[in-house]
Amino acid sequence: MSKPKVFEKPSGMKDYLPGAVTRLRSIESRVLACMEKWGYRQIMTPTLEYYDTVGVTSATSDKKLFKLLDNRGTTLVMRSDMTTPIARVIASLLKDEPLPIRLAYHASVFRAIEEEAGRDAEFFQTGVELVGDPSPDADAEVIALTVASLQAAGITHFKLAMGHQGLLNGLLQELLQDRPTDQDQLKERLLARDYVGYRRIIRTMGVPAEVQAKLEGILGLRGGKEVCSKVSEYTADENTRAAIHDLCEIWEALSAYGVQEHAMIDLTMIGDFSYYTGMIFEAYSAELGFPVASGGRYDNLLQQFGRPAPATGFALKTTRILDILGSGETAEAKRVLVAYVPQQRREAYQLAAGLRERDGYAVETRCIGNGVTGHTTEQTAEGKLAYMGKIYDEIILLAGEADGGVRDE
Amino acid sequence: MSKPKVFEKPSGMKDYLPGAVTRLRSIESRVLACMEKWGYRQIMTPTLEYYDTVGVTSATSDKKLFKLLDNRGTTLVMRSDMTTPIARVIASLLKDEPLPIRLAYHASVFRAIEEEAGRDAEFFQTGVELVGDPSPDADAEVIALTVASLQAAGITHFKLAMGHQGLLNGLLQELLQDRPTDQDQLKERLLARDYVGYRRIIRTMGVPAEVQAKLEGILGLRGGKEVCSKVSEYTADENTRAAIHDLCEIWEALSAYGVQEHAMIDLTMIGDFSYYTGMIFEAYSAELGFPVASGGRYDNLLQQFGRPAPATGFALKTTRILDILGSGETAEAKRVLVAYVPQQRREAYQLAAGLRERDGYAVETRCIGNGVTGHTTEQTAEGKLAYMGKIYDEIILLAGEADGGVRDE
Repeated sequence: MSKPKVFEKPSGMKDYLPGAVTRLRSIESRVLACMEKWGYRQIMTPTLEYYDTVGVTSATSDKKLFKLLDNRGTTLVMRSDMTTPIARVIASLLKDEPLPIRLAYHASVFRAIEEEAGRDAEFFQTGVELVGDPSPDADAEVIALTVASLQAAGITHFKLAMGHQGLLNGLLQELLQDRPTDQDQLKERLLARDYVGYRRIIRTMGVPAEVQAKLEGILGLRGGKEVCSKVSEYTADENTRAAIHDLCEIWEALSAYGVQEHAMIDLTMIGDFSYYTGMIFEAYSAELGFPVASGGRYDNLLQQFGRPAPATGFALKTTRILDILGSGETAEAKRVLVAYVPQQRREAYQLAAGLRERDGYAVETRCIGNGVTGHTTEQTAEGKLAYMGKIYDEIILLAGEADGGVRDE
Repeated sequence: MSKPKVFEKPSGMKDYLPGAVTRLRSIESRVLACMEKWGYRQIMTPTLEYYDTVGVTSATSDKKLFKLLDNRGTTLVMRSDMTTPIARVIASLLKDEPLPIRLAYHASVFRAIEEEAGRDAEFFQTGVELVGDPSPDADAEVIALTVASLQAAGITHFKLAMGHQGLLNGLLQELLQDRPTDQDQLKERLLARDYVGYRRIIRTMGVPAEVQAKLEGILGLRGGKEVCSKVSEYTADENTRAAIHDLCEIWEALSAYGVQEHAMIDLTMIGDFSYYTGMIFEAYSAELGFPVASGGRYDNLLQQFGRPAPATGFALKTTRILDILGSGETAEAKRVLVAYVPQQRREAYQLAAGLRERDGYAVETRCIGNGVTGHTTEQTAEGKLAYMGKIYDEIILLAGEADGGVRDE
């Protein structure tokens, strides 16, 4: 294959230039501050993990993992999410800390292949995990905090769709007890949001008309509080009824948080991570077809690390939020250039130091004039001056001989 | 080989728990704010780069690079420094931006093998690059900003040793013109700070006594301003004399910055990156044997990316600074728990929302009491209460029936 050109970077990999970094950093700090207000403490985990521990436990499909070998020949993976590494930490370094534990993070995660669809192979996520609390209140907290975090990030128009993995699994299991393959096929259609395909499968499955009608009816289980009562007619199974009760309680709690206006119930939703067991949700902004946040309950992940515990959480897709917000109104510093001849170094540095103590000032210094301190010849003096007028809000020239006369331009 | 245990992480890889993250974040934001004050704008580059571009150009030895293959079979590396990726960006995305360009970064970098010495294989660096200014003023700026950055990070006691790669190379070349192998051997000894070995080589090399004396004398080229005049006696070579003049000018500029008290000249220093061409320096804290910052001039790196330009820069070894500062006095939030019975959800959430608007409050809510919102059974109620008293500064219980009576504990 041909060598990459010297200025190229791997596909799916991105540089963030200063303007974008300022905006990304601003989102990051506002969202993390919000999470901290809610009692979530920040954690960091390494970029590389063992394939046999975090790699296989994560919900990322094998072909999407970036893999490499360490110098002992053990397979490593670049983290593909933060939920699994945090589960590892809660079961090891934090094993003596009583539950519930609330943790937050901001980190880049890695997914190979994504690039083929022109998507990022490395992107930022900002999220929380609430481990050790099985209550619907915990799920509602995670959704309410998603709302607060999106608002902190500067996203004002968004909708939240909430489903319930456990409830959907329960319904399908009850209606299609001895047909696991049919269940999987129907879930695949729902994940792809292919409702036409879903209906086709139902009709060709050869089940009683009553079951067909109920399966068809699942597509209608979307809306507000009425969905809770509607789905109650679907089942007599005890576990499924418990799941319905859970869903209704979460909805009640969302109302107590005052965030119901952003939310709807959609029981046709399937979580994109295989470890979800209960409530799942996605948030969509008005501007974008992709979710800007997603999350859910995962009560079985922690036990794989030897500390069984219920858990729920979410992640903002921070890189996408940056794209939506575009070049917004982040406060720019006032840019000042102090240019000086070598004889006035000391005055120039002192002047710059004084200006840097002011709020909102970014001050550069530049020696001009003599041979020793010559400049790059890449630009002409005229071109340079014209450009300088564009990038600096103020240019101060110290070119006097003795007492450092200051001149503003 | 045996499978890693489920809670293990690869050697050289670290988790940072909340206390450490708070301190690390505090160092990061203070240092970046300082760099921004000096006109350095933040940039981010991807974790993965092509081996054939950034990988081979970086000064990191091949065996220390983490390598992997992308899905086309092209070799990628995890970045081992930020200087080389930034050179790539300046020559590509920023190719139309006139020089000088000032950029800052905070990022983790990766070095394999390091772990064998118990060192980190992934660690944080916070640094700057000043590209397009060949003047001694630019080198002095970078050193003065190192001082300001270390102080912003909270390091008060430190020393800076400054050498000059070009000057040392010039001296050795002049004294040992036809003996490149001897030059390399002597540099190796200096890099290892093995002055006994350095002297042994000089004696067994079979050069005139006068040359021997001058080579021996290099070991004495350490101190303040007097080193500048001392080294002047060493050479008549024009390039070497220009390097000496450069060194003296940098020293003068450091004096104008008022940071000379932190600095000394040490011409026996060898930069740990092969791309250094001029001034090089390292900063040591009183508390640690390793450098906490290092930097230097690299005038030949940019041309490898097709945009020839002089450059200078430095990086703080942020992870080490974190180790030195230990568990310092970062402002902790006041931790409040609002515990409630389900009937008082709304009151509890409103109370928490109000408290979160206050500065310095972190507020958790927790549903207690009824069966639906049962808790993990991992701890006994007594153990939980005792523990809660330790982690919360205040616990507010909403357990009334109707009007939400508030009780402080």
